[in-house]
Amino acid sequence: MHNKPSVTVWNEYRHEKSDEDVRSVYPDGIHQAIAKFLLEAGFSTQTATLDEPEHGLTQERLDQTDVLIWWGHMAHDEVDDAIVDRVQKRILEGMGLIALHSAHFSKIFKRMMGTTCNLRWREIGEKERVWTVASGHPIAKGVRLHFEVPQAEMYGEFFDIPEPDVLVFVSWFAGGDVFRSGCCWQRGFGRVFYFAPGHETYPIYYDKNIQQVIINACQWAADHKNPGTPFGHVPEPLERLGN
Amino acid sequence: MHNKPSVTVWNEYRHEKSDEDVRSVYPDGIHQAIAKFLLEAGFSTQTATLDEPEHGLTQERLDQTDVLIWWGHMAHDEVDDAIVDRVQKRILEGMGLIALHSAHFSKIFKRMMGTTCNLRWREIGEKERVWTVASGHPIAKGVRLHFEVPQAEMYGEFFDIPEPDVLVFVSWFAGGDVFRSGCCWQRGFGRVFYFAPGHETYPIYYDKNIQQVIINACQWAADHKNPGTPFGHVPEPLERLGN
Amino acid sequence: MHNKPSVTVWNEYRHEKSDEDVRSVYPDGIHQAIAKFLLEAGFSTQTATLDEPEHGLTQERLDQTDVLIWWGHMAHDEVDDAIVDRVQKRILEGMGLIALHSAHFSKIFKRMMGTTCNLRWREIGEKERVWTVASGHPIAKGVRLHFEVPQAEMYGEFFDIPEPDVLVFVSWFAGGDVFRSGCCWQRGFGRVFYFAPGHETYPIYYDKNIQQVIINACQWAADHKNPGTPFGHVPEPLERLGN
Amino acid sequence: MHNKPSVTVWNEYRHEKSDEDVRSVYPDGIHQAIAKFLLEAGFSTQTATLDEPEHGLTQERLDQTDVLIWWGHMAHDEVDDAIVDRVQKRILEGMGLIALHSAHFSKIFKRMMGTTCNLRWREIGEKERVWTVASGHPIAKGVRLHFEVPQAEMYGEFFDIPEPDVLVFVSWFAGGDVFRSGCCWQRGFGRVFYFAPGHETYPIYYDKNIQQVIINACQWAADHKNPGTPFGHVPEPLERLGN
Repeated sequence: MHNKPSVTVWNEYRHEKSDEDVRSVYPDGIHQAIAKFLLEAGFSTQTATLDEPEHGLTQERLDQTDVLIWWGHMAHDEVDDAIVDRVQKRILEGMGLIALHSAHFSKIFKRMMGTTCNLRWREIGEKERVWTVASGHPIAKGVRLHFEVPQAEMYGEFFDIPEPDVLVFVSWFAGGDVFRSGCCWQRGFGRVFYFAPGHETYPIYYDKNIQQVIINACQWAADHKNPGTPFGHVPEPLERLGN
Repeated sequence: MHNKPSVTVWNEYRHEKSDEDVRSVYPDGIHQAIAKFLLEAGFSTQTATLDEPEHGLTQERLDQTDVLIWWGHMAHDEVDDAIVDRVQKRILEGMGLIALHSAHFSKIFKRMMGTTCNLRWREIGEKERVWTVASGHPIAKGVRLHFEVPQAEMYGEFFDIPEPDVLVFVSWFAGGDVFRSGCCWQRGFGRVFYFAPGHETYPIYYDKNIQQVIINACQWAADHKNPGTPFGHVPEPLERLGN
Repeated sequence: MHNKPSVTVWNEYRHEKSDEDVRSVYPDGIHQAIAKFLLEAGFSTQTATLDEPEHGLTQERLDQTDVLIWWGHMAHDEVDDAIVDRVQKRILEGMGLIALHSAHFSKIFKRMMGTTCNLRWREIGEKERVWTVASGHPIAKGVRLHFEVPQAEMYGEFFDIPEPDVLVFVSWFAGGDVFRSGCCWQRGFGRVFYFAPGHETYPIYYDKNIQQVIINACQWAADHKNPGTPFGHVPEPLERLGN
Repeated sequence: MHNKPSVTVWNEYRHEKSDEDVRSVYPDGIHQAIAKFLLEAGFSTQTATLDEPEHGLTQERLDQTDVLIWWGHMAHDEVDDAIVDRVQKRILEGMGLIALHSAHFSKIFKRMMGTTCNLRWREIGEKERVWTVASGHPIAKGVRLHFEVPQAEMYGEFFDIPEPDVLVFVSWFAGGDVFRSGCCWQRGFGRVFYFAPGHETYPIYYDKNIQQVIINACQWAADHKNPGTPFGHVPEPLERLGN
């Protein structure tokens, strides 16, 4: 693993420009808030947004990225399919993907999962309590058995995802719902983590517990490289060749 | 699969004899209440209890059992290790095991899991809401997305079990906790299901939702037989023998 | 489950028309050979092929299909993306998918997996021995611990798929390779099974062992229905509503 | 994680004393050969053997051990159950366990698995080829897609273990068998890895590929600590306490 893994924080970056409530919480955009605490945690960080050329996700940029964080909400459909193809290819080669909150409906997350990624939701600012159910997992390091988000958008089951390789967090909501809110998958040589807490007007990404999880997830997802496994036609049997 | 799988309901059967509150809910013992609805659902049913010779679990009885249901609470330690060995062996040969509620601390369940099976608990009669997170699983057939137990003992995370092969149910508790309350594992040729709802004084096993889950679990666990796979020394290489 | 699950066998059906060697083995097409033994096994069977309107996979046909078997090789790219969308949607609603041999590179299988589904291969007609590593699984019912395909195309690791929910078969090849040749996944409310043995000129689908696996897989995959789980906006908290 | 994880290499250490063939390969015992390359790889290493007091596995020693490697063959039954209890407890608290070759039948490995851990075997010195099927996993770092053991004891399927959390290696044997030869499980806060290659007279632990896998496995297993999760009675609902 690199001493300093390189994280690119991608943000749709629309809400912050169009909505005063969002701007007041994230004046420079959610991506900058996330990039800031990752930088302080020792990562090399860059940002990229929807309205940049190629959404800021050129091949060169992806090649230099160990972990891609994805935040989108209103404009999933505006992401170019060719860029989704490119990101998927890079994940399968070993880049990590961390999909946050409403990114459950992003093209790239649905592409990696193969399912609808649908869920139930409600927005009344209720309390969310995040429980750690895989305390031994690297993403749970230094994270309390339970911590709270005072005001959250409820995301509830049924969540249409492949059974996670490891289920790390389950959320409890005051209104009576539960959610598999922290889920890990291996895909190709890349690692994927979905983390549900987050919102565009609740200041969730300033929360130290939330930041710790995202920092841990970046560290975990960065620790994977494509070993250059050969594919394709194998002309001679290994046995005949004796090697 | 048998048309009529044979289920043996095992109960410690102590509370019902010593405690008036328990007896008033389960006058014939929890085992009889469970056996009754399984019989009505079309299973061949027997019961067995701790104080019978060999705890009612003779080799002959086990050999004729497709699914064993286990309920214990106060007297886990009184179960003879030799009987635990016998039950484990039979599970690994293909008998299903359904461990209910406080059976998380039974010798046989801990034996099958290899972990402490410890958890957090609280008994204030709070509401439990059971959520189905694997709606496509046979044990969830005909079970609603969520159903409630009006008064329950809280069992909460962290629950020290091996990551389930399939997580079918997650429970929400009014007091703020969550629990992986319905979990499946394959062990040897047998299937194991843990289902948390249940209590000795709340009338949980008369609940139609709870009964449906247990019926489904029996059907699911019965659908496995030991194919008689050979083990041990293999004198000749298959290749040399050409078969 | 239906007493008679409905299976649609889809075949690209090109090789059989263009290549005498293939036609001599499968004069009516691979789909008819597969449909025949499934019909004898008690399934309701239909076939569909690439060159039919909508590739034979109309919405009506899919709605009436419990399990879809997919065989393709030369013309994966000619499958219309809109049909792939439709099939994926139907799988996620509960239809089973059984992908055979070179269908590892079909659009629909790659869509369900989210990975490249790449592998290593060699075609020298070497011996394949299929080992059952999950003897207790329904797809292994009545299947021997090992059986052989006298002449097979080698498919070898690394196979770029998500870790299977259950790995049922592993193949040994005389030339020195191994392959995870029978793999199960749950996706949405549907079940997916990949089975590697098969070829367009080796008469593999006439083999009784191979047929048994495919019959078992159809039975297993048919046993799943979409319970109609609600998704989307949930206006009121369950707690406030008290239900 | 420690900069220098502490590994204790446990060996039955009987063969080396009683059998000239074994002694000629491992004059100081298999444990010393393993400890040597782990020391060179930067671990702090100790050894322990069956005939020491408490089999060398005092509570103090275990408390200072991050990863325990286990090698046993002839004398599994002589390991004291009380020591097995102690080791199991320590694994569940976070110590890693790496079980090598014939340790599949050790008391501690069977205890962690809950299954018979039985398998098929043959000893004719045939070639084993180890295939990496989870190339992205930390235990496969720097390990080739396939490597060979020129002369090996065959361990073959069916292997009666719980489905691994991650299957890292599958072995091919010249005689026609396959084996899931590298398997990972999480148990409590500890990580368990089983690695099949190894033998008392073939010089397998001098092989650089084998050493790389064991080094990787120690690094992987050391990366887990018990976060001190509370268990037991929880007197007040979190909701009532408002925290």
